[in-house]
Formats: sequence, structure tokens, C-alpha cells
Amino acid sequence: MSSVPGVSEVGALDASDPLRHMRERFILPEGVIYLDGNSLGAASKAAFIELETAAKEEWAQGLIRSWNKAHWFELTQQLGDRIGRLIGAAPGETVVTDTTSTNIYKALHAALSLRPDRSVIVAEGSSFPTDLYMAEGVAATRPGTQIRLEGVNAPTIEELIDDKVAVVLVNHVNYRSGELRDMAALTRKAHDAGAIIVWDLCHSAGAMPVDLNGADADLAVGCTYKYLNGGPGAPAFLFAAKRHHQDLRQPLSGWWGHAKPFAFEQGYEADAGIRRFLCGTQPILSLRALKGALDIWDDVDMALLRQKSVELGNLFIELVEAHCGRFGVKLASPRDGTSRGSQVSFSHENSYAIMQALIERGVIGDFRAPDVMRFGFAPLYIGYHDVWNAVDALRDILETEAWREPRFAVRAAVT
Amino acid sequence: MSSVPGVSEVGALDASDPLRHMRERFILPEGVIYLDGNSLGAASKAAFIELETAAKEEWAQGLIRSWNKAHWFELTQQLGDRIGRLIGAAPGETVVTDTTSTNIYKALHAALSLRPDRSVIVAEGSSFPTDLYMAEGVAATRPGTQIRLEGVNAPTIEELIDDKVAVVLVNHVNYRSGELRDMAALTRKAHDAGAIIVWDLCHSAGAMPVDLNGADADLAVGCTYKYLNGGPGAPAFLFAAKRHHQDLRQPLSGWWGHAKPFAFEQGYEADAGIRRFLCGTQPILSLRALKGALDIWDDVDMALLRQKSVELGNLFIELVEAHCGRFGVKLASPRDGTSRGSQVSFSHENSYAIMQALIERGVIGDFRAPDVMRFGFAPLYIGYHDVWNAVDALRDILETEAWREPRFAVRAAVT
Repeated sequence: MSSVPGVSEVGALDASDPLRHMRERFILPEGVIYLDGNSLGAASKAAFIELETAAKEEWAQGLIRSWNKAHWFELTQQLGDRIGRLIGAAPGETVVTDTTSTNIYKALHAALSLRPDRSVIVAEGSSFPTDLYMAEGVAATRPGTQIRLEGVNAPTIEELIDDKVAVVLVNHVNYRSGELRDMAALTRKAHDAGAIIVWDLCHSAGAMPVDLNGADADLAVGCTYKYLNGGPGAPAFLFAAKRHHQDLRQPLSGWWGHAKPFAFEQGYEADAGIRRFLCGTQPILSLRALKGALDIWDDVDMALLRQKSVELGNLFIELVEAHCGRFGVKLASPRDGTSRGSQVSFSHENSYAIMQALIERGVIGDFRAPDVMRFGFAPLYIGYHDVWNAVDALRDILETEAWREPRFAVRAAVT
Repeated sequence: MSSVPGVSEVGALDASDPLRHMRERFILPEGVIYLDGNSLGAASKAAFIELETAAKEEWAQGLIRSWNKAHWFELTQQLGDRIGRLIGAAPGETVVTDTTSTNIYKALHAALSLRPDRSVIVAEGSSFPTDLYMAEGVAATRPGTQIRLEGVNAPTIEELIDDKVAVVLVNHVNYRSGELRDMAALTRKAHDAGAIIVWDLCHSAGAMPVDLNGADADLAVGCTYKYLNGGPGAPAFLFAAKRHHQDLRQPLSGWWGHAKPFAFEQGYEADAGIRRFLCGTQPILSLRALKGALDIWDDVDMALLRQKSVELGNLFIELVEAHCGRFGVKLASPRDGTSRGSQVSFSHENSYAIMQALIERGVIGDFRAPDVMRFGFAPLYIGYHDVWNAVDALRDILETEAWREPRFAVRAAVT
């Protein structure tokens, strides 16, 4: 136990943290340690300012004129490019639009349009389920399409990739365990087999540097309401490598994706670039909150962010194992920080009730069936002392068996 | 000219208008007569209150807990039912989600799933183009599907409906002319041929009473940012008659449409009811502004709304023809108010420049290529005197040829 950091050492880590000042940009409730930014990111002053301007000035006063004057119609690309910078995309390769699920549908169809002679979609059995549901939906519109799942049809995704595979749909970071894939290596493996790869960045965008073009990725999707802090249900993003643009087809061919949306032509002609992935009119108020949230990212050094993220996770693991290990909690994430996203999961047979007890004490993580407590570490607003306090609360709940109170056993739907 | 109302008669109409007090609920800029609520509806105090509560209390303070405590996950159905009341739907038949374009895609696929042995989609050549683009997208995923267009393959939509037709996709009110279809008659015609009908209510929801179930309609879509005043790009709605629910399939099968979205199962199982039309996580801030806007509708008598709408349009036509007819403006909408939505269009060879000159004077309508000036009359915040003043401005611009100033000829994209 002598090597486990004490409270004063943790305090020193905060004092020397170069990202510590970022917390001032966010609005967090008093008395809460928020370890669920991997599910819904925190609000910020910048997001509120954008939201208020969009609502009270642009909508109320500008009315229809704001589509041009306030550049609403350009938000999908403008915000796309700002996220693009964080995920290794070039300008013009990313749009913000619709939902992750809908964007998976478009990306899979687009990938299949590049490989019309192939019929297999490879995905992960352990994926966040909507990826699989959308793959099913795509398969339903392409008779003969087969879905192969890692963990079902073979133990590893690599074993599933052969010359029948049109597209590999894969999560960069697993939503449950936090396990991080090697993007460059798996992309190479897919390409070597002649397959297209679609990366789901929901749990890595804003959590670490991502280098899509460095890995030669084809397509990617992701959400903006987790680490990017865009607000509840903020529109998702879609990336497509420029080399593919002119060949990509996707059937959600709405007017926002038309080459000349305001010519009101009868026939569809896809935009030459990334706008071909747009479909219908986007929720401007939600987009503007996201715009404010992205302002913050302009000042973030992604290498420092990653370093702090790994350190927070490592400290959490070390402290939980030292102080709570005797109560049966077991690490359910990679121990090696370089193989992990910005989250750490622990399993325990009473995880649900323990997490409810933690939340009541203001330590907010989440539960994932059947037995996982998941803790996210958003380095922009979580400090080392937060980690210390969270573990202290967990230890106390386990030691006193506070989680046994019957009210903590009642399940409610959580996202 | 003697029968044309004068300014005092118009004032009397406002004084006796039972909906006049509704204007107080809205926030409109000073010096503007807003005749474009058919494109983007006005902001309201109620929308701002909801937006602020959702952002500053629920998001910032409640964080992830608000998905349950603030009932965010239920908004799609809760708001759907409130719109359902305005369009003749029963509870549980309408959801608010995604965009109109995306919902057209789902509705067309769902309709085709009811008629697997048929292959023709009928639509209108004069439709707002995204309906046609989405039909193209659906056809691309169903080899052998044909699209027949009114105005291209036959002069009237009725002539296109035969026993090969799977689905008729039709606008209740034409976006350009304001022409209103007879919903009951065309639905009967489609059903007599064994076809499914999908109504696009973008220009009728919130503009008049709509009776989907009274007409025995199958499916419908529509937007919430026009007459319903939900805010720029507010999510759209989708209606499906309960009798069809268990048989409807649509390929955007995301986790929000799953029977047990929080069980995180690998395989998709559609919700038994209207939620099977949901896909991914919805933009909560935009939904909450819409919630505020819908509060206003709880107090609206739709019969009174329709009566005022028709009267506003009739007055506008009468005044424009009397005061501006000599300058070459020609009615491009049905003269009979009962065959018209809540908008009136006039054509003129210089419509673009004339509309720009009008907008500069604070009379905001819009232009639709090639030669149409379109004026919308949202009865909740437009009065008879607004109509008078708008026509007076139009007359002055035509009389003085103010529209000839070169700056009015410069085109910019407008929605």
C-alpha cells in the first residue's frame, strides 16, 4: 500500500495540471463529481451564450433572414470542420448532422456503394447495440447482405475479415470496457482484404487525439454530446475521406445533400463533396449550443488532454484496487492506459445498487448491464482530487454496505 | 373598387378577432410584418422558457440524471401526441423525431413493407423537392421500384393511381401555390386501388384543422418549424395509423426504436407501437423549444384559426388585386379560400427584386423560383391590419418602381 498515492500527492497533481484552468469554462452543479461525461458532457458558458444568441437574436429578431445572415445553413460544414481538426480530418471531410445511428446507416450504404460485388458487413458483438441494429437495417435493404459479428462468428474481428467483406464497422473505444482499438492497424487489415472501414468514434472524439487520415480511414461517425459537450442529443458527425467523395452513394438523399438545394429541381443530384451526407433541415438551436462547446476545443492541446486522461484513469484504478479491492470490485477495463479510452469500468455483482448509492452522494457514473459500473474522466473538467473523492465515496459505500438500502435496488431506464 | 375594404374596415376586423390576444405570446421584431411563418414560425416566450429550463437547469444541473428526471426520453412521444391532437391522430400514433426528409424515407419504406408485391411510388412533380429526392433514395434500395409523377407522367395524381401502386406520397398543401388537397377523397382513391397513402403535412399542420383518422389516412409526416413555431430546424413528426403498427417495417432501426432500448441486446426488435419509427438520440434543446411552442396550441380553437386564415388570405388577394393589379402581379394560388392553405402566392416577372424591396421595408415574405412571391398568414400572430400594411408597401414599391434598385437583383440562397 505504500506506493499508493495519498491525498497530498493527489493535490500536487492538480496543482501542476496544465488543463486545470479549463474547468472554469464549464458549469457544474455544486457537490457533484461528474464521472459520466462519456454519456452526456457538461454544459458550458460558451454553449449558453451561443444558444441564447441563436434563440433570442437570430430566431426571434432575424427570423427567416437568419438562414443567410446568421449562416445557419453553413453550420453543418462549419462545425464539421471544427470537429475534423480533433479527429484527423482535412477541411471538407466532416459534417455535423442527424444522429449517430442515422449516420451509421448512411456510412454503411456509402461503404457498400464502393464494394457492390461484396455482401458482408463485419461488426462487433460487443458494440453499442445501435451500430448492430443499423447494420441490420441496411442489410434489410440489400438482399443477400450478411452480418458477421466478433464474439459470435469468431473471437476476434481480424479473423472475420476476408475478401467477401465489403465493410468493417468498428468502435474505436468500446462503450462498456473502454478498450481502445489500434486504428491504423485494423484499417490496414481491412484494406489489405479490399474492405472499407467505418470507425465509430462516439467514445474517442474529444477523449483523445484521433488521426483518421493518418490511419487512412475511409468513413467515420460519432456523437457530439459526450466528450465534446455539445448538449443533450446534439447532432452527430460523419467523416468521409475526400478520395471517396465522388463515388459514395447513400439513400437518405434529402434536399440538404443536393448539389443545388435552392434550385428546387425535381431530380436528385448529390453535392460533389461531404454535403452529400446531409439529408433534411437540422436543429439549429442544438447546433448552436454545440458551436459554443466547440469554441472551448480550439484552446485544447490534445496531447496534454490524452496524457491527463490516462493519468486520471490510472490513478482511479490504483486507488479503487487499493481501497475497495477487498469488497470484490474487479477491473473490467484494460489496465494499460494506452489501450484504454477515457473511461474505467469495474464489475461487482451489486453494481447497480452501488452506483445508485454513489449517485445519491453526488458521484455520478453509470451502470451497464449486467454488472458494470462505468466511470468517465473528461479531462477538461475532472481533476485528480475528484478521483480521490470518488474512490473515497465508493470505499465508504462498500465498507458500510450503504448500497444495501432497498431504494438503491429499483431499476429505472438510463441512457 | 367600392367594395374593397378600407383601412377602417380592416381595423374593425382586428377589433373583433377572437385570436387577436394570441399575438402577445409571440416575440416579433419591431417594424416587421412577418408573412413567412410558413417557412420559419415566430419565437415565443413559452419556447424561450422551456429552452432555458432545459439548458440551465436540466442539462447543466441535472446532467445525465435529466434523461429520467426531466423525462427527456419521453419527449418524442409526448410532443407527438400534442401534435397528434392538431392533425386528427389518436394518442400513440405520432412521434416527433429527426427531419421531414428522414421521416419520408421511413414512411415510404413502411408503406412498401405493407405492399411487398407492388413497386410503384406516386408523387407530385410540383412537390417540395425533398419528397421526390427521398422517394429516389428509397427506390435505390428497392430494385425495380418505379416513381410516377403528377405533371410528368399524367396531368393529375388521380390518373396515376392503379393496382401497381404501392404508395401515394402527396402534399396536403402545395408549398408554392398553397393549393389544398381533399385528404378524404384522395385517401379513398388510393385505398380503392389497394395503395397506401403518405400525407406530407408540412404546410397544413398548425395552419388548419387536419383530420388524418377522419380521412382514414395511413401515414403522414410534417415539420414543426413552420406554423407550429417550434424553432429553426425543430425536429419533424411522423404519424402512423395504429391499425398498421405491427406490420410496419422501416430500415432506420436504431436503438430508440427498439422494444427494449436499455436492455442493450445484440438483435433488433422493433417497439410494438409508434416508437418503431424512432432511430437515434434526439436533440433535446430543440425539442424543448418546440415543447414551449406547443403549449400555445393547447389554447387554440382550430376552427377559429382556419376561419381567420381564410379571411386573411381573401383580404390579401382582394387588396393586392385592387391596389397592385395594374402593375402586373397575378394570383398564383387558388382564389377559393377553402381550396387554399394559409398562404397566398402572386407571380410577377420581377418577383425576386420586388420581394427583396419588400423585405427591406420590413414586409417579410419569400421568393420561390422562377417568379413567385409567397406570403404566409400565421393567424396566431398576423392581423388584418398587417395585411393592409403589407399591401400598401407592395403598392408603393410597384408604383415607385423601387424594386429596380440594383441591390435588389442580387440573389442569395434562401430556404
